[in-house]
Amino acid sequence: MYYLGPKGSFSHEAALKISNAIYVEAQSISEIFYKVSSEGKLGIVPIENSLEGPVNETLDNLFKFDDIFVNKIVELRINLVLASKEDINIKHIKNIYTHLYAYKEAQNSLFKLGVSNNIIPVESTSKAALLALSDPNSAALCSEFAARLYGLKILAYGVQDYDNNITKFALISKNVSFRGERSTILFTVPDLPGSLYKVLEKFYMFNKNLKMIYSRPVRSIPWNYYFYVEYEGSYEEKLLNELKKVTTSLKFKGSYNIT
Amino acid sequence: MYYLGPKGSFSHEAALKISNAIYVEAQSISEIFYKVSSEGKLGIVPIENSLEGPVNETLDNLFKFDDIFVNKIVELRINLVLASKEDINIKHIKNIYTHLYAYKEAQNSLFKLGVSNNIIPVESTSKAALLALSDPNSAALCSEFAARLYGLKILAYGVQDYDNNITKFALISKNVSFRGERSTILFTVPDLPGSLYKVLEKFYMFNKNLKMIYSRPVRSIPWNYYFYVEYEGSYEEKLLNELKKVTTSLKFKGSYNIT
Repeated sequence: MYYLGPKGSFSHEAALKISNAIYVEAQSISEIFYKVSSEGKLGIVPIENSLEGPVNETLDNLFKFDDIFVNKIVELRINLVLASKEDINIKHIKNIYTHLYAYKEAQNSLFKLGVSNNIIPVESTSKAALLALSDPNSAALCSEFAARLYGLKILAYGVQDYDNNITKFALISKNVSFRGERSTILFTVPDLPGSLYKVLEKFYMFNKNLKMIYSRPVRSIPWNYYFYVEYEGSYEEKLLNELKKVTTSLKFKGSYNIT
Repeated sequence: MYYLGPKGSFSHEAALKISNAIYVEAQSISEIFYKVSSEGKLGIVPIENSLEGPVNETLDNLFKFDDIFVNKIVELRINLVLASKEDINIKHIKNIYTHLYAYKEAQNSLFKLGVSNNIIPVESTSKAALLALSDPNSAALCSEFAARLYGLKILAYGVQDYDNNITKFALISKNVSFRGERSTILFTVPDLPGSLYKVLEKFYMFNKNLKMIYSRPVRSIPWNYYFYVEYEGSYEEKLLNELKKVTTSLKFKGSYNIT
């Protein structure tokens, strides 16, 4: 199973929650899609964050690769810890390694802990954990998972400002499943009054609750969009046939459960 | 008028297209919203790119600041040039300063020009122009506007891989306008089957063509969204009154022209 590295990343943690397959690190989300399509293996990719919204690179690749489907969604709560090589007093920490994004999400919590150390931004929170291991007067602001993976001592738990920071990861493969709690479709509509309305009318006729609707630019034509829709329930052939009548293109991307 | 700096940025170029006001550089989009709200001045912010989609920080601030409205939209085609202090042969360039994003958008074009120099990523393309000025064997990959502003010689024009790279900038202020080619509203709906459908039904009833619909997470509640809708035509009181019946919150953000 391909995941977005490095080792100890949130994607790695999500992958372990799904199965005990053999894990292979990838450098980018696009690389994972390419590998899944060409080798027929599994992949795990971040698809949406509760604070930041959808992950555009994942959506655009789902739109691009007609042979790749979503098989499962895993939710991972983003918990941050402050961890160090030795069990030192927080006040004695000189440098804190972290990803700038994690730092942004933890600024107030660090302030409350009385930590106002030198922040050293690095590419990922797992890289931060690795660096903290080789610098005894430093700490990493990283996931508990990364801290444990690299054998660090945890000095403080829950160092994030918001407790509703959750990321959804999608298990992707070349197999399509037609049953599950949720389903995803992608489609385009003509640029006319009522065209999206006529699509949503079909969902309403079939009493399907939309959980998410999102638009993304079709890169080849400025100000043209494709739609990403997640709805409650499994695949229904009748609904899909109705949707085909009111869309200019339609891609069913799978039914799946959320864990 | 506040714009997203530094001097020579695409926002600065867009600002000059709008008026000959006095320009004040800001450090972030959020700072511009804060200044416009507290001081009653004008601001110019990027709102959407044809390849990358909406600018989330701008949308989230429009949702947050109830006293800020869109007055005008300016489109700016993103053209890149290769520019240097002296009119040197491209083959003699040692370093190219640029923003990593601009480099990504120009990789193939640079390859076709036979340029395979050392790329030095910096915070902005205007910073790149400034650095190229003090390093005679280097060039900047930047906008024509930035190159001219810093007095560089242009070695190559149109160094971008896609010609459909256009950014829309919004002129914002505390004044609301009710007339224009387009209008923007923000709203939330209940989590029930058909709730978005019932909103779009109103637009269809009033024969309004939606140009853009986009969802963004409401950060305080995971997997809850607000919608951003841009439609053709001016404010209509009757439409807004109908929309109020089917939304849980509704914000009219202004009617405006696109230039």
